[in-house]
Amino acid sequence: MPIDRKDTRWNGWGWSRAHNPLEGRDAAWPWMAAALGVGDLPRTPAKPLEQITLPESRLDASLRGALATAIGADKVRDTVFERAAHARGKSFHDLLHLRSGRIEAAPDAVVYPSSRDDVVRVLQWASAHGVAIVPFGGGSSVVGGVTAARGKQRACVALDLTEMRKMMAVDPVSMTATAEAGIYGSDLEAALNAQGFTLGHFPQSYEFSTLGGWIAARGAGQQSNRYGKAEEWFAGGEIATPKGLWQIKAMPASAAGPDLRAIVAGSEGAFGVITSATVRIHRLARTRDYRAYLFADFFKGAEAIREIVQLEIPVASLRLSDPDETYFFQAFGKAGQEPTLKDRIQRNYLSARGLGQRPCALIFGVEGPTSAVAVASVHARHILGAHGAVPAGRGPAERWSAGRFHGPYSRDPLMDRGLGVDTLETATTWSNLKRLYDAVREALERAMRETASSKGAHGIVLGHVSHSYHDGASLYFTYIYPRDLPREIEQWQAIKKAASDAIIASGGTISHHHGVGEDHLPWLEAEKGAIGINVLKAIKRELDPAGVLNPGKLIP
Amino acid sequence: MPIDRKDTRWNGWGWSRAHNPLEGRDAAWPWMAAALGVGDLPRTPAKPLEQITLPESRLDASLRGALATAIGADKVRDTVFERAAHARGKSFHDLLHLRSGRIEAAPDAVVYPSSRDDVVRVLQWASAHGVAIVPFGGGSSVVGGVTAARGKQRACVALDLTEMRKMMAVDPVSMTATAEAGIYGSDLEAALNAQGFTLGHFPQSYEFSTLGGWIAARGAGQQSNRYGKAEEWFAGGEIATPKGLWQIKAMPASAAGPDLRAIVAGSEGAFGVITSATVRIHRLARTRDYRAYLFADFFKGAEAIREIVQLEIPVASLRLSDPDETYFFQAFGKAGQEPTLKDRIQRNYLSARGLGQRPCALIFGVEGPTSAVAVASVHARHILGAHGAVPAGRGPAERWSAGRFHGPYSRDPLMDRGLGVDTLETATTWSNLKRLYDAVREALERAMRETASSKGAHGIVLGHVSHSYHDGASLYFTYIYPRDLPREIEQWQAIKKAASDAIIASGGTISHHHGVGEDHLPWLEAEKGAIGINVLKAIKRELDPAGVLNPGKLIP
Repeated sequence: MPIDRKDTRWNGWGWSRAHNPLEGRDAAWPWMAAALGVGDLPRTPAKPLEQITLPESRLDASLRGALATAIGADKVRDTVFERAAHARGKSFHDLLHLRSGRIEAAPDAVVYPSSRDDVVRVLQWASAHGVAIVPFGGGSSVVGGVTAARGKQRACVALDLTEMRKMMAVDPVSMTATAEAGIYGSDLEAALNAQGFTLGHFPQSYEFSTLGGWIAARGAGQQSNRYGKAEEWFAGGEIATPKGLWQIKAMPASAAGPDLRAIVAGSEGAFGVITSATVRIHRLARTRDYRAYLFADFFKGAEAIREIVQLEIPVASLRLSDPDETYFFQAFGKAGQEPTLKDRIQRNYLSARGLGQRPCALIFGVEGPTSAVAVASVHARHILGAHGAVPAGRGPAERWSAGRFHGPYSRDPLMDRGLGVDTLETATTWSNLKRLYDAVREALERAMRETASSKGAHGIVLGHVSHSYHDGASLYFTYIYPRDLPREIEQWQAIKKAASDAIIASGGTISHHHGVGEDHLPWLEAEKGAIGINVLKAIKRELDPAGVLNPGKLIP
Repeated sequence: MPIDRKDTRWNGWGWSRAHNPLEGRDAAWPWMAAALGVGDLPRTPAKPLEQITLPESRLDASLRGALATAIGADKVRDTVFERAAHARGKSFHDLLHLRSGRIEAAPDAVVYPSSRDDVVRVLQWASAHGVAIVPFGGGSSVVGGVTAARGKQRACVALDLTEMRKMMAVDPVSMTATAEAGIYGSDLEAALNAQGFTLGHFPQSYEFSTLGGWIAARGAGQQSNRYGKAEEWFAGGEIATPKGLWQIKAMPASAAGPDLRAIVAGSEGAFGVITSATVRIHRLARTRDYRAYLFADFFKGAEAIREIVQLEIPVASLRLSDPDETYFFQAFGKAGQEPTLKDRIQRNYLSARGLGQRPCALIFGVEGPTSAVAVASVHARHILGAHGAVPAGRGPAERWSAGRFHGPYSRDPLMDRGLGVDTLETATTWSNLKRLYDAVREALERAMRETASSKGAHGIVLGHVSHSYHDGASLYFTYIYPRDLPREIEQWQAIKKAASDAIIASGGTISHHHGVGEDHLPWLEAEKGAIGINVLKAIKRELDPAGVLNPGKLIP
């Protein structure tokens, strides 16, 4: 069943009716305040929809009429809810704007095409009239990838793909599936599972993000070691452009010139709109083996991961938290409780195993055919043991697995108490991992201290290795800090800039799987080089000469 | 040690001093003539260098002087040998021209840059003066990728990269290596092997092709199942363009916009010149397990391969010959000999195992860490057995392995006897494999019959599955036919057109690992679409506005 956007939060994460995971956790707040060096945490509720004012629509009757004629009047919607729900994505920065009612830009209308031809017609209408189009899947971008355009265009229309959600074909011999790009993750998986297959793409946004969005932003799921990043499982597809429909044939491999799929993956709606995609699928895993381990040292844990992937042991997931991340979630969860006997025994056990008070947790997972899982698991566990990993059982791994899509639900109640909570991610080679990790942590901590509203206030940085490769790994950071309410946007910008500068200066990529959007754009040229940026601009000029496709994102 | 081009054949394959593998095999010729439905095979020797005439150089004193000033006079060479040796690549079609002395176009000079800055200077000189530049690595293109330009440019210069052959860095932690792009395969492997690593890229041209050429043409080695195609192990690099040096940073993964490495891989010198590359390397395989198997049916064998790769068993090589290929090489090798007792026993054994007279040979190989090889080999052999494969021992696999770079040496003596011998390759999804195989075979056989010089003359088509993937496989065809000498070029063109039309009509890619060059260019738009071609043209305009880079290749 497709998601009805009305059942989801326009200014927060997920289902409107979802349980607040911090409800009744009164003791958590003083604990958090102390951890951040501040006194009481203020109450900072979000403005309800009824209290916000949207900019007046710039879509005049003639423009709107031409659009309605092009694709049908019922597909053009412009209620306050539709416009507000499509004004921005789901980043912390987006929520700062949405929750405060600072909606400087909203789409003047939202269109819901029902076919690829509809999409081409909308793009041609937009090109003819100079109207910005913001392609919108689940709208879960956390990099400003779907912010309503505020540029020179005459108006802005959000192009919501979620009515285009058909599963079109499954080829069980070639193990590929073709679907319309607006299909949500859970619908796609359900349709594949029914035939014994899986795409295996499970980002944290999985329920609220779409196939097309995953490709457009080069997403990675939590099991990408096994199933690949979006650009790897994306085999071919159709892309609507102002110049017409572009079909990229799915080939297992080719040397017929440059692989143009790579122009589409990561194009973030700036070159065209992905309307359908053929993807590489897998048989549903018969067996899953997920376990937790503890390391005394983060980089010793990273060394174990490196050895496992460089030996090409086919694992699905290797998620290694740093000491602060390992400690924080446990401590926050137990804030206000006396340590139990079990806690004390656990602590003594860890201490006896040489892990000290601040170990690092690894979630290790293998899945696939039973025999392959057994072999890989034994081999990988041998390497983990050789690197000093202490088994912590299946329990923590199962809890991580069960809760792995729920993390963002905690953000809303944290934001209700004057807190900032954001994440960012990068990747680099193994030999550069420590340098990058240290630099980003240091930059975040310093920036949070320097932008704090009160003396002694500071932030917390939590990190983990989230994805690993033959030649390197990605680092994922969560940072939490007390907001300086009158200047909360500037404060966030200063922290984001410090971290992004540190990433680039330390040889990391500005994004491993979130994308560029508006937020990472200032750092893109440092990574791609002036010539690389000019190549992107040349492609943009060719496919979108009127410059109406997602202006302000990806292309400087 | 780098190769001295003077020790190699300018109009044939490999080392000048190499042994003729068909020498003294007098009985082979009547056998071959009979197999092709013709009488005696004529003697058609190649013209020696002294008898050929090259077009007069168009590089006047002023142009040549400016070039010599730009990079140094000693790096500009224009002897007859240099010009002839850089006039074309090593395809059958190239050799038809070179051997007959029909050298309509040759570079007016050859330059040997010794640094990336030299290359940028040459490109800027060429752009300023409208001189075509043909980047030239080993010159082993078999698709017309290095043919001297005959377009509107004022002159043509071959840019020979083979003086740029330094190993620049090895990162044993991240398992990457960086080398100048003109390094030959054997030098690169030797340098890596000395440190315990391998790139594992072994195309048939391995000894006579370069790192940059592999990337520019998206090559695949014979163990690409394990080590990947060039675009997969190419992690980053430097590309000289008329706009300056473009640096693409090596990242293990990224979502910072489209992956521009994919613009470089397969660019065939039309966008720039790869001057260095960072590649993903592997530890030298501790163990290798190569074996031969026989199948009664080609597509049953392909099914076994499909199951092995879809179960993600980490094999290195799965090369399945069709009945004609399996038969032909054996029969040609034994032509003129009476069957031995061993032959008769073998035939009876095969017959008893239900394989008939025309089985299909599979070369199966696993390599890597000892334990992984053992596990993969047992698992894969179990699947082979379940699909009816009959073990044929390690002997044939070892013979294949020992001779795997020598195949092209037979082409020259075959061409000396009026024969045509060419290869082509494609790839498609598993579910489309039979359709493509049948169509290409049929088209080749029909075209060879229809273009034959005498009644009853025909060709032979030999095929094999050469590389396999999760979603499909590549097909490699060799075809042999009696040349119609007075119109041998037109004959080849008609055969090539028939096969290429069949590939496109049957859903194959026009090339799996040879590239586009001049020969596949007429079919590129059918594969990439008009929009895809326009994207390539836009990139070309941006990077090479003067249109001097390898004109006539890749970009229609």
